[in-house]
Amino acid sequence: MIFRQLFDSVSGTYSYLLASRVGGEAMILDPVLERVDRYCQLLRELDLKLVKAVDTHLHADHVTGLGELRDRTHCITIMGEETKADVVSMRVSDGDRVTIEGLALDVMYTPGHTDDSYSYLMGDRVFTGDTLLIRGTGRTDFQNGSARAQYESIFNRLLKLPEETLVFPAHDYKGDTVSTIGEEKRYNPRLQVRSVDEYVELMNNLKLPNPKMMDVAVPANIRVGLHQDDLAKQGLSFSAIEAIQSLGRPDILLVDLRETSERAKHGTLPGALHAPYPGIDDSLKPGGMLREVATATGRRVVFFCAYGERSAMAVNAAKEAGLANAAHIAGGIDAWKKAGGPVATG
Amino acid sequence: MIFRQLFDSVSGTYSYLLASRVGGEAMILDPVLERVDRYCQLLRELDLKLVKAVDTHLHADHVTGLGELRDRTHCITIMGEETKADVVSMRVSDGDRVTIEGLALDVMYTPGHTDDSYSYLMGDRVFTGDTLLIRGTGRTDFQNGSARAQYESIFNRLLKLPEETLVFPAHDYKGDTVSTIGEEKRYNPRLQVRSVDEYVELMNNLKLPNPKMMDVAVPANIRVGLHQDDLAKQGLSFSAIEAIQSLGRPDILLVDLRETSERAKHGTLPGALHAPYPGIDDSLKPGGMLREVATATGRRVVFFCAYGERSAMAVNAAKEAGLANAAHIAGGIDAWKKAGGPVATG
Repeated sequence: MIFRQLFDSVSGTYSYLLASRVGGEAMILDPVLERVDRYCQLLRELDLKLVKAVDTHLHADHVTGLGELRDRTHCITIMGEETKADVVSMRVSDGDRVTIEGLALDVMYTPGHTDDSYSYLMGDRVFTGDTLLIRGTGRTDFQNGSARAQYESIFNRLLKLPEETLVFPAHDYKGDTVSTIGEEKRYNPRLQVRSVDEYVELMNNLKLPNPKMMDVAVPANIRVGLHQDDLAKQGLSFSAIEAIQSLGRPDILLVDLRETSERAKHGTLPGALHAPYPGIDDSLKPGGMLREVATATGRRVVFFCAYGERSAMAVNAAKEAGLANAAHIAGGIDAWKKAGGPVATG
Repeated sequence: MIFRQLFDSVSGTYSYLLASRVGGEAMILDPVLERVDRYCQLLRELDLKLVKAVDTHLHADHVTGLGELRDRTHCITIMGEETKADVVSMRVSDGDRVTIEGLALDVMYTPGHTDDSYSYLMGDRVFTGDTLLIRGTGRTDFQNGSARAQYESIFNRLLKLPEETLVFPAHDYKGDTVSTIGEEKRYNPRLQVRSVDEYVELMNNLKLPNPKMMDVAVPANIRVGLHQDDLAKQGLSFSAIEAIQSLGRPDILLVDLRETSERAKHGTLPGALHAPYPGIDDSLKPGGMLREVATATGRRVVFFCAYGERSAMAVNAAKEAGLANAAHIAGGIDAWKKAGGPVATG
């Protein structure tokens, strides 16, 4: 396995690059905008294809690298379903799994630092974001933070993991790189409380100044989504309403880009084909499955996904592959459902 | 295994705490003086007994934590045999092994950054000090540095390790924590040279300013040795000459505190018992082996080791255990040999 802990000394952020092998698929957790050049260099050097970029929560102390990485590598972006970010490619919730070739992260909803804080468990190690830090915990005094919720997340979720589980947080300011659940249980000064009320009292009296970058980082991190307007101007976009009105038209080929787990959880559009986004370049090549179907049937490909990001990127990939009229459903199945469109079992 | 990479953000130094298990023996590489409190706290929390502290070379950019750790924990200090440090407990050379319970480091002499630069190989990972950095190499323009020697150390030693070997350097300034031999071979910009002469040319034209801490750190790191004068004033010390003159006296019990490998390599004193330093506290307790021998024979225990550090610490341990008249040979077998004392096969 490739496991790289990368440090941004300006914000004290740890990012994590994960892959099962050189030459395979990669995922990155909590990337920092200013470090994207370094990540991309490392991806090239290790011959990795970045397919997923995950933020554990909406950060207030640095600008996320999610958008920039998506624009440069066409990876998909992932955050929790509670996030205030305008658009991400995929939203996850407790119990989901985030997978790439050879690796899987179990999604744990651990609110408290913010109401969109998640942790990710990968076998013997857990990425705790700002929920559980080494000998500390993430502050709970802004972004709908809640000391009470954090107590629950830490004491009843994270500390229930096996004691030897390695803890990899999103930040450290004192030179530590890793800890274990057992150590934090015993030696984290904030966790030596006898009750949730004592923890709430402790957290509510920290009197910390706001993060220096907060006024810049939070608005920037909310506007992380891919701009989908360009495609509309080019006539390559269906609004949800237009898409619903077009349902059943014989000249249109609906293509669902989401993963099997998303289809099972949220359903799909009636009559849609399934072509998962990570393989879309191959499928669009001459000789590729989707290209052959589009050519053989003469139908116009209309991509959709969860929120319109993967489908927008697929439209661009189709154009580059020579399929100039492929379109997508803006806002994805999320917008489709909100507009009252019918959903089939995935 | 417990493997902790610890960062000193002031000097950009990585230190490494190693142990095979919670509750067992530990070793630390390249500790930083200002971080000793943190190391000691972590040792307590993980219930580890620090037995060895190693510097890969005499650092010019930070003051070593070796002396402070030795004074606080009674661990032994280790550097290469070329080091300018006044006294360390043990000096190693190429091909030696540094061992603690359950772990062994193979010693590789890799001069170039300084003439006392060593690397330490532990299975699938190598601690490269300032010889090989992540996408860089240690400067070679002071402390008897040599770009030519460094080329040899890197190209003919380190880069000959298996490509997947993990590289853990003593410094990083750009947010990386680890690399591999294969990556450095291909992507380290300083290693993309066609000849040793090209490397020398490159290194001799870096035009770097001296490290800010150099004028403080180098003298402090040279004076790292334990002060042995106090024991002499208390009458608990034999000079090498006095010790040679006392050889064969029936009222004296010579005790060699060194490891088996040191005895095999450097020989020992005629008639000496062997009681390795790490177990000395147990051996000195009432009921302990050494205590029993000293009591039964009525002989005065005279400890010796390589350079007098372990023996000085053992004299203090003996006093604390109630053996008030134990003494040591100042300067160890090194001083003994220099004074012309006879040596037996170890």
